[in-house]
Order: sequence, then C-alpha cells, then structure tokens
Amino acid sequence: MTATTRRIVSGMRPTGPLHLGHYFGVLKNWVDLTRDFECFFFVADWHAMTTEYANPQRIKGFVPELVKDWVAAGLDPERCTMFQQSKVPTHAELNLIFSMITPLGWLERCPTYKEQKQQLMEKDLNTYGFLGYPVLMAVDILLYRPGAVPVGQDQLPHLELTREIARRFNHLYATELFPEPQAKLTEQAKLPGLDGRKMSKSYGNAIYLKESMDEIRPKVMKMLTDENRKRKTDAGDPGICNLFPYHEVMTGAEDQAMIREGCTKATWGCVDCKKLLLESMEAFLGPIQARRAELDKNPDAIWAILEKGNAHALEESTRTMDEVRQLLNFD
Amino acid sequence: MTATTRRIVSGMRPTGPLHLGHYFGVLKNWVDLTRDFECFFFVADWHAMTTEYANPQRIKGFVPELVKDWVAAGLDPERCTMFQQSKVPTHAELNLIFSMITPLGWLERCPTYKEQKQQLMEKDLNTYGFLGYPVLMAVDILLYRPGAVPVGQDQLPHLELTREIARRFNHLYATELFPEPQAKLTEQAKLPGLDGRKMSKSYGNAIYLKESMDEIRPKVMKMLTDENRKRKTDAGDPGICNLFPYHEVMTGAEDQAMIREGCTKATWGCVDCKKLLLESMEAFLGPIQARRAELDKNPDAIWAILEKGNAHALEESTRTMDEVRQLLNFD
Repeated sequence: MTATTRRIVSGMRPTGPLHLGHYFGVLKNWVDLTRDFECFFFVADWHAMTTEYANPQRIKGFVPELVKDWVAAGLDPERCTMFQQSKVPTHAELNLIFSMITPLGWLERCPTYKEQKQQLMEKDLNTYGFLGYPVLMAVDILLYRPGAVPVGQDQLPHLELTREIARRFNHLYATELFPEPQAKLTEQAKLPGLDGRKMSKSYGNAIYLKESMDEIRPKVMKMLTDENRKRKTDAGDPGICNLFPYHEVMTGAEDQAMIREGCTKATWGCVDCKKLLLESMEAFLGPIQARRAELDKNPDAIWAILEKGNAHALEESTRTMDEVRQLLNFD
Repeated sequence: MTATTRRIVSGMRPTGPLHLGHYFGVLKNWVDLTRDFECFFFVADWHAMTTEYANPQRIKGFVPELVKDWVAAGLDPERCTMFQQSKVPTHAELNLIFSMITPLGWLERCPTYKEQKQQLMEKDLNTYGFLGYPVLMAVDILLYRPGAVPVGQDQLPHLELTREIARRFNHLYATELFPEPQAKLTEQAKLPGLDGRKMSKSYGNAIYLKESMDEIRPKVMKMLTDENRKRKTDAGDPGICNLFPYHEVMTGAEDQAMIREGCTKATWGCVDCKKLLLESMEAFLGPIQARRAELDKNPDAIWAILEKGNAHALEESTRTMDEVRQLLNFD
C-alpha cells in the first residue's frame, strides 16, 4: 500500500453553473469523500477546450463560479485540494509523454468517443485533442497516483483506459510508479430533471444551486407529476411521478412516508406536494446559498483557494513528473 | 514585418552521431544561416520519443553528443540559440492547445505519416503521439514565430501543416499572432553514402564527423568507383562514381577539374583518387575534430551552452505562450 492509496482525484469541466443533478450525482459524494480520503478536485479547463475550442474565452468566467458552487455546497478547502488544471503545467508535460505510449486503437475504440461525437454534432469535434481526451484524463488522474477515482457507470470505459495506460507505462519502463486506480462507483442517486429526463442545462429542465426560491417556485409549480392522476381524488403512483425523486433526496423520511401513503390513497394532492417540496428545497438550499453569499462578499477568496490548491497540486504532481523523467532518463 | 521575421527555427532528433550526410545536407546550411538570421536550433528529444518510446533511456546520451557535433562543425553558440526541447515546458503546453484545434484528417492525410509508419515497421508506431508528430513540430516552430524554416523537399508537407495550424489559430482567435513561416529550401547538396545510397546509420554506409582518419581510411579505400572502369587504362565517368560527389564538396575546384579530366582520359587512377579524397577529408575534418577535442576537455561546456539556450528559448517562447493564454482567456 503506497502513501497515496487513500487518495482520490476527480474533476469537473467549467462549462456552467451546477444544478441539483450535479449535486446529487457527484458533488454530495465529493463532500462525503473528504471525510475519509485525501482529495484532489480540479477544474478541468483544458478539458473544456476539447469541445469549446471555438469559444474558449467563455471558459474563464465559469472557473471561479464552479469553485464557488463547490465550496457553497459544502466542500471545505481545508479538507481537500481544489485546483485549476491549466495552472499546473505538469499536466501538459505528462500528456506529451503518455501520448507517445498510447496506442491509437485504444482511443478510436473507446465507446464514449463516437457517442460523444454524435451527441455534439453541431460542433466540429474531429480534432486530434478530442480523440486524445482519455489520454489527458489519464494524466489528470495518474499525476496524483490515487488509489481510487469516483466515477459513474458511464465513465467506466475512460477509467479502464487510465488503468491500461498505467499498466503500459509500468510495463514499458519496468516500474510500479503508477497505481491502477479503482473505480469508486457513485451511488446512482441521479436526480432527474423537472421533466423526468436527465437534468441538463441543454434541456432547460434544471434547478441551479445558486437559484433563488423566487426563480425556483414557478419551475416546481409547473412540474408534471403522475400524468394518470387527473384529480386529487384519483390515486397516484410516486414511482412514476417527476416530483417524488426530489422528495426522496430532500424531504425527511417521515414526510416521505406520509406523501407515499397520501398519494396512493388519494388523500394528498399534487399542489400540497409541490409546496412541501419547496419547503424542503428552501431548507436544503438555504445553507448552500448562505455560504455563497459569504463568498460573494469576498471575490478574492475563491482565487486564493485555487492558488493554494494549484501550488499543492504542482508540488504533488512534480513528485510524479520527477520520477517519470528519471525513468525515461529525461532528467 | 514583425520583429521575428528574420528568425529561423530548426531542430534535429538526438538519435546518434552526425555523419557527413547530415553536415552537407543540413548542418552546413545552419552554420551559413547564423550569419544573416537570428537562429534557434533545438535538440528534439521529445520528438525522439515518438519512435524511441520503448527505449527512451538511450536518448539522453545523444543529446550532448549532438550539440558537440553542432559546435564542432562550426555552429557558434554566441551567434545562435541551441536548446533542448524537453527542458522548455512551453512546448508541452502549446502542444495541448494546438491539439484541440487540429483536425484529425489533416494528420491522417499527411503524406509522411503512412510512409514513415511503413519504413519503421519493426516498431509499433500506431500511437497517438506518432500521429501527432506534425502538431508538436508546429509547436516547436511557431512558439518562436520565425519568418522561415530551413527544410528539405521531403519535409514540405510538415511545414505546410505548420502553416495551416497557424492560419487556423489566427482565424479562430481573430489574431495575427502566428506568422506562416516560409520554407527556406536547402540546396539539395545531399552527399550519398559510401555505397551510393542515401547516407544512413542503418545502411552502414556513413562517415561520421567524429571518426578518426584511421577509421575512415579503410572505408574510403573500399569504396566502389565507376564499376565499368575495370583498369586504370579504361576511361571512367565521374558522373556515376560513388567517390566523385565527395570531391565535389571537399576538394578544391582545380583538383576537381584535374580529376575529371584524368578519369575520363584514363590518366588518373581510382586509388590515387581515393588518396586525394583522404587528404581532402583530413583537411575538412581537421578543424571540426580539433574543436571537438577542445570540447571534450570540458564536458560541462556543452551543458552550459544548452542551459543558456534553454533559458533564452523559455523566455522567448513564454512571450508567445503569454499571448496565447491571453487570446484564449486562460491567463
């Protein structure tokens, strides 16, 4: 067991404000992980370039907003390292080295590659950098030699590529420098969007962490519930209601039981249910937005967190790069 | 005209000692260029990784030897900048940026790509880095924004890719940051190998700049001349003689005329011709080897040249990277 076995690395691309789907899908898990692991969380701004290269100027504005969302949501800068990828040049250097040893076929066959290219048809993603996305991702992870990486099911192919690159490097250079990080599968607590589809900015079905209750209220009130329940006197089914998953993550267990019973027995209406959800949401978002308000009073605070994190990330990743250079006799 | 219009950039991969083919094909031209241009010459050790990734440990030994060959051959460190690619991390960073904007098709269609892959069949070159060779080459050149690049005919497709990447960057980010460097075609003074084929380490038909006359003598004496000339009393044809191209680059014009006449009139024999070539070679290599002997007395001198050059290259390339970051709003 190496010193970094209890280390975790994960990142997000700065492409917009975080919504509840991000929180319950990823961020909540990050906050929990800081209790038991040494965590490195990074703003993947170079990664954002792979799809935003035509308008990279927008990226910078999202960087402090992303970190603000993180801290507001409960990530404690004293308990983890938050850094900005493009400020840690070791990432670019190891990317060049990993490029040399990564077979093209691994990248071309990567299941997410063709998928993403099709999803983003409106952008021209036939670039060298987009093909190399998993190489840069392997770099981001392996530079810190973590024992595990928190991923969703859909990212498993990428992590497998990271593990393959680690194996290939170790094999080529007769070393055990790189661990093969384990997948720390996040519980599939995916909160659907307001319309039941995946919550996503592009679907316009999201509630953002920084939204005020005045903005949220009409969104919730317009939500479709169980479409078969025309009247309050019809029995409903929380299992096919768009609203109920929100109660499941935000409303107390007792109230959840009450809702479930009232809905199925036609004694509790959808409007009441929405009002209760708004209360839960206010209780949930209150502390997050209070922290955000504090952060907004001092705009330098976020940059200070990143500067400290960048320095620490550079120091830690330089340890790895020094060993890489030594192994390759490039020191 | 920008400040760097009279700037030249060129590099060599550190894969072994230089031979006369390198000297008359490239290096002599470099020495000449330093008279009229601000020159940056670099040891392309990261490029060497594209083909040598399985044994990168060998590369380092070739680095000082290459620079020693350069200086011994007449490159004056006071009149140009010599640096080592891997010690100038801006190259890795711009490589990442250029990756994002370079269409895959440009690389896949590059005529040298498939050619080289076939030539080097014994090595597995189906790597992401090998495909991206021209991207890294564009980086090496454009970081210094030179007006021209000395190239042979065979490298024109690569330079064209560099120009295309410069154009695309300038277009995407509405800038004129990068020039489109002109090809400075080197005269095709290619000295053939001892057997008439291209001079190459792998053919075993080379004479190295650092070889002693004792090593060179038997090689020259064994050279085939005009194969139709069986006896001295047969007339020969310098046009199909392996030896004569050597006289053309190393022997004085008068002696060349004498040889040409004596050979075609059957009054001058091949053995005499070889002895005269050895004299020319000794006169040519003498100063080169004297400078090398001086350098060998002080092994630190070469590293000092590189350190100074690395610092200057970092300074100049950082100017470019700062502008790139500003344009992309990554500063």
